[in-house]
Amino acid sequence: MSEALRTDLKPKLHGPIPAYFGADKDGCLLIGGQRVDVLVHEAGDTPLFVYDLSIAAARIAALRAAMPPELAIHFAIKANSHPDLLAAMQPLVDGFDVASGGELTKAIVAGMPANEISFAGPGKRDRELTEAIRAGATLNLESAAEGRRALKIAEQFGLTPKLAVRVNPTFDLKGSGMRMGGGAKPFGVDDSEVPALVRELITAGADWRGFHIFAGSQALDAAAIAETQAATVALAANLSDAIGAAPPLVNLGGGLGVTYFPGDMPVDIDHVGSELANVLASRPDSLASSRFAMELGRYLVADCGVYLCRIVDRKVSHGEVFLVTDGGLHHQLAASGNFGTVIRRNYPIAIANRFAAEATEVQHVVGCLCTPLDRLGDQVLLPRGEVGDLVAVFMAGAYGASASPAAFLGHPAALEMLVAGRGQARAGN
Amino acid sequence: MSEALRTDLKPKLHGPIPAYFGADKDGCLLIGGQRVDVLVHEAGDTPLFVYDLSIAAARIAALRAAMPPELAIHFAIKANSHPDLLAAMQPLVDGFDVASGGELTKAIVAGMPANEISFAGPGKRDRELTEAIRAGATLNLESAAEGRRALKIAEQFGLTPKLAVRVNPTFDLKGSGMRMGGGAKPFGVDDSEVPALVRELITAGADWRGFHIFAGSQALDAAAIAETQAATVALAANLSDAIGAAPPLVNLGGGLGVTYFPGDMPVDIDHVGSELANVLASRPDSLASSRFAMELGRYLVADCGVYLCRIVDRKVSHGEVFLVTDGGLHHQLAASGNFGTVIRRNYPIAIANRFAAEATEVQHVVGCLCTPLDRLGDQVLLPRGEVGDLVAVFMAGAYGASASPAAFLGHPAALEMLVAGRGQARAGN
Repeated sequence: MSEALRTDLKPKLHGPIPAYFGADKDGCLLIGGQRVDVLVHEAGDTPLFVYDLSIAAARIAALRAAMPPELAIHFAIKANSHPDLLAAMQPLVDGFDVASGGELTKAIVAGMPANEISFAGPGKRDRELTEAIRAGATLNLESAAEGRRALKIAEQFGLTPKLAVRVNPTFDLKGSGMRMGGGAKPFGVDDSEVPALVRELITAGADWRGFHIFAGSQALDAAAIAETQAATVALAANLSDAIGAAPPLVNLGGGLGVTYFPGDMPVDIDHVGSELANVLASRPDSLASSRFAMELGRYLVADCGVYLCRIVDRKVSHGEVFLVTDGGLHHQLAASGNFGTVIRRNYPIAIANRFAAEATEVQHVVGCLCTPLDRLGDQVLLPRGEVGDLVAVFMAGAYGASASPAAFLGHPAALEMLVAGRGQARAGN
Repeated sequence: MSEALRTDLKPKLHGPIPAYFGADKDGCLLIGGQRVDVLVHEAGDTPLFVYDLSIAAARIAALRAAMPPELAIHFAIKANSHPDLLAAMQPLVDGFDVASGGELTKAIVAGMPANEISFAGPGKRDRELTEAIRAGATLNLESAAEGRRALKIAEQFGLTPKLAVRVNPTFDLKGSGMRMGGGAKPFGVDDSEVPALVRELITAGADWRGFHIFAGSQALDAAAIAETQAATVALAANLSDAIGAAPPLVNLGGGLGVTYFPGDMPVDIDHVGSELANVLASRPDSLASSRFAMELGRYLVADCGVYLCRIVDRKVSHGEVFLVTDGGLHHQLAASGNFGTVIRRNYPIAIANRFAAEATEVQHVVGCLCTPLDRLGDQVLLPRGEVGDLVAVFMAGAYGASASPAAFLGHPAALEMLVAGRGQARAGN
């Protein structure tokens, strides 16, 4: 095939590659101090997700340093519930938040004590309520009806259920990628209905654990996050006054976003932390005895993950270069722009074994699926990619393998591997 | 919770429910002549996909009646590769088209003879080429480089490979949901490069099987489809002249759309068929000996499938009703509006056990995932849904279970069941 390339194609930017990724003397991307080609060899195949625990650990440490010391940090394992990662995260955080009976089991298997596990999510089935109550996990109730089902099940087993109430606040988190509050929502109980429900739970003998208030996620604006947190604490205080009892725990939700796209700037967590410290220091007496937590998923693990796939074909069509990989949207749906985004933008992407090389060619990086949706990099400026090269898609540690249609078109699932710092790696799957 | 409902919510339409679905005397939806509650009981749980083979068989029969008799009908199994469905489809169609090594295996297990299987898809790995060549399936080559890899592998095994060339046409299918041709594309070989490649394949001793020309899919405009098919035949003739040899098979691709959304009208297949008959009858001599095929996925099976989930909670938030089900986008991503669509619209949806009841209430039907993306019906007018009711989402036979992120949030996979007409059902999965 002739290679008369178009020279008029303007590159489209890709998102920022996290600064702590670098290359060895040969220009090969390192993850956890190891060359990606070595990691792929060790795992046995591509495509491969590699999670670098040291990055997640550093992320958590930085967050703790910025936040008031009394704030508990929970990991929302929906972001990434790979067993090796969960086991390694368990000692680093103060609790796991789960969203299904399946995730509850994973949290317990990973060694998290049940009293540090909370379970939120609409549509919990009776068997899931039963599992949580028997395990001793906290249920974040999504409705009054769910609360009554939980009370009934607990009574059948002669157990005292740990019940918190998820509150649907009247405010949302401005600028968030996912608005979880404000107006009519399937999540939680409208705030006006919360006091009556909590009193009903307490009267019925439940162990009331407090509030779960989640106004939004994936926001980068520190001022908006701080404002939402202040409103959340104020709402908790008002509800607490109306109930006449202090919530043992106020789960402030998440909200801290990560940088996927060109121009995204990291959240100023020092600002969020200092504002939250002020809010907590000056909180009403009705919350004096309460503990506070944030529940974070992607913020803790997105940047620790790299998705690696291999170039199988290099094609030119109408003067444009297509690097066809063995990966695709069946492993990384969000990076293809087909999950919760309206306008497709490029995730951070690189030719991993030419990480230090000069970017010289505008190329499309596509997956192996027979659909035009399957694009990992659109018109990106990269070093010239050749068959056999490894492509790295960054920010793949959250909502990657588990949030993609793995069975689509019958290709194998991606491998997953946790590396725990320099020289240590474990192949998973 | 109080139930002060908003009365000002205007319903949003949902897509048309296929006319052949009806209810029994109690108003319960029937599939294959059986009540959905009985099918769910037999399968053992919800969520459940039910595929009615008689609907797919009738669809294929109607298509054959409309199309010229010499046109072969292939099933693109990427649309639905459930083993029971595949085995039942095998005698009804003239070939299976596969998109991965995994699908190739499924096609063979389903009993399709290898010489009626063709394998298209960018980024075929050497092991996939090897499997196809050893099995005797036809490879639809996506690039010259892939052709050379296939020749080399065949030589290693002392086999004659069956090779067709996928052509990237300069036209696309107007109004199609997925444009697969026209301009720079990752699929196939630019038409200008095809003659040289085919001559190279023939010279190398390959069994050249012809062309695969796929300009687009999911179009409802019969005139546009007919125009594209005429252009496809003309392109095949031109290529054939340039090569100096007639293609044994011209795969015309797919293109026939199905009716997912309000206002969608079925394709006039009689028009498509009569136009194609004219085109084939008057085709150039260079294609006199060629066979022709269409490759259809969703057109054959979308309407035979129904996704059933159960209402776990009925909630009111700010006056709006939410029916919270045990299903969701982890099983039916496309119905949630998050796969390849920019604007979310409602798939056809019903309260299955109140299928004959009057629609009296505007309700949201949501899944059990903790994300605002997880909506199966947005502001739809339905009979009042109660806890325990079954929700049916129609047009679920294609790109449902296999094209959704089943592992997302750790819920169980959906069950799948084939019913083969009145009184016969087999539970799968």
